[in-house]
Amino acid sequence: MNNVLAVGPFKEEQKKRLEEAGKGCSFRFCADFNGAGVSPEEIASADVIIGNLTPSRINESPRLKLMQLTSAGADAYVKPGVLAKGTVLCNSTGAYNKTVSQHAFAVTLAMQKKLYLYRDNQNEKLWRDEGEVGSIADSTVLVMGLGEIGIAYAKMCKALGAYVIGVKRRPSACPEGIDEVYTMDALDEVLPRADIVFSILPGTGATYHIYTAERFKLMKKSAIFVNCGRGDAVDNKVLYDALNSGEIAAASIDVAEGEPLTADSPLWGLKNLFITPHVAGFFHIPDTLEIITDIACHNLKAFLSGGSYRNIVDFSTGYKA
Amino acid sequence: MNNVLAVGPFKEEQKKRLEEAGKGCSFRFCADFNGAGVSPEEIASADVIIGNLTPSRINESPRLKLMQLTSAGADAYVKPGVLAKGTVLCNSTGAYNKTVSQHAFAVTLAMQKKLYLYRDNQNEKLWRDEGEVGSIADSTVLVMGLGEIGIAYAKMCKALGAYVIGVKRRPSACPEGIDEVYTMDALDEVLPRADIVFSILPGTGATYHIYTAERFKLMKKSAIFVNCGRGDAVDNKVLYDALNSGEIAAASIDVAEGEPLTADSPLWGLKNLFITPHVAGFFHIPDTLEIITDIACHNLKAFLSGGSYRNIVDFSTGYKA
Repeated sequence: MNNVLAVGPFKEEQKKRLEEAGKGCSFRFCADFNGAGVSPEEIASADVIIGNLTPSRINESPRLKLMQLTSAGADAYVKPGVLAKGTVLCNSTGAYNKTVSQHAFAVTLAMQKKLYLYRDNQNEKLWRDEGEVGSIADSTVLVMGLGEIGIAYAKMCKALGAYVIGVKRRPSACPEGIDEVYTMDALDEVLPRADIVFSILPGTGATYHIYTAERFKLMKKSAIFVNCGRGDAVDNKVLYDALNSGEIAAASIDVAEGEPLTADSPLWGLKNLFITPHVAGFFHIPDTLEIITDIACHNLKAFLSGGSYRNIVDFSTGYKA
Repeated sequence: MNNVLAVGPFKEEQKKRLEEAGKGCSFRFCADFNGAGVSPEEIASADVIIGNLTPSRINESPRLKLMQLTSAGADAYVKPGVLAKGTVLCNSTGAYNKTVSQHAFAVTLAMQKKLYLYRDNQNEKLWRDEGEVGSIADSTVLVMGLGEIGIAYAKMCKALGAYVIGVKRRPSACPEGIDEVYTMDALDEVLPRADIVFSILPGTGATYHIYTAERFKLMKKSAIFVNCGRGDAVDNKVLYDALNSGEIAAASIDVAEGEPLTADSPLWGLKNLFITPHVAGFFHIPDTLEIITDIACHNLKAFLSGGSYRNIVDFSTGYKA
């Protein structure tokens, strides 16, 4: 019999769907996001793990055949020592499109309209006009990373009248909803054109510290930088300096290099930086866990019947293959 | 010779356009929004005033033939004692569609995503997850007031997947981008359905204190109320109680009953209220003053040549006729 270990806040109806898809398997559910309540024996005896069990606890388990992440990011699981050779790794790319793109778009508009300043003013009981604001309909938006989230975000910008430039890893035809598309080598040429730079790059070697001090200098002084991808795409010190010196007008980050940000980080106190604590994704809108359940059900069936998996991760890139 | 008094921060190019449209007239420009630098003699000798000169200074000036407001709201100018009988009053309906609808939409998304709480947390250096958030794509949005701003806002909501219900004064076919339309008498039936209640009602007798305590009780406990219309559509005390007692989840106001809000108003300190100081409109995006100039040029020409005016205000309603 196959043992399925499912960690995460699945609802009863979702658990039933998983059990139906994995008929004949023995199920162990654990509501903790990272499976803190699961024993080492339960991990070692699992044939399938659904959910983001803490990677350091997997120890290349030889019995594990399918590791179905509830996250889109897979970087912590492709590192050596986590999964044994032969374990199939699938992510939940797709499940977070709506929640992350919505958050990023809400933050983009909030930054343009200086809502973070108005909240600070409110807390000082100040009825004070903060002057000119941005207009999404008159903005050029640079979307760094044209996965499904990037494209969903781009479509929202476009729907409100923005001009959208996309940058992606591999050359391709221009996706619908994007006005111009480039590969990474053109980055320095397109950065100066953007009113908004939205980064939804995954964490890979190629994206580590990609936003250098020089690149912030290439951006408009009026530019707004929004990062909902990975924190290590920009060095915290570089981001601090770019904002503190006015190289760019403002930024919002849902991710930081080193999470959670410690209380001594100078980033907290920057007036023109708005911080959200990695909440764009997670399960904060109901849709997300529904779609994850869909993917997990499909892959459980594929595991049992020898069908083809959805969202297999390529270990060499950390992306969906 | 006709004297034209133009108050407001018109740019050089816009002044030239006005002078061209009013060829042969004598122009007096004053950059103050409300014409504070203009003398009583200049007001008394004006045949045309462009801009929102302080209403109490007009004193039914017998010479004034055309009063062209730079605002959309005209309530302060239709009151007795301001304009003499026979003065044509025109507003700038249309000029604020983009800026106000954008602000309202940005605020709506920001409220759904709890960004005001995250800003407060940031100021306390707190990396803390605030849990579930709203999804515009899964929301029912009630738009109170289907003028051009209401419709522009509705289209943005619709573009992001919301279901939109509109409420307006007069019966009409359902405008494009609205799923259902009702007149005011159906208000109490539609309030319980809304996740978002957006008010863009003008200040008239019929809209005074329209959002009563009973109506806040009719709304969902999870509802978000956004007011960018007129402050006196809701009594400050009623709004305070609805938010403080949790009748609704949160609200954002760009307008208040009695502006500016004084420092002793209890509204400032409500955690679930986000206040912006009547900044949705004004001239905060460049488009606005451009469109106002278009309208003023048209009406100057109409005044001189006897053509028909744009945006004439009906004194009995305070609306564009």
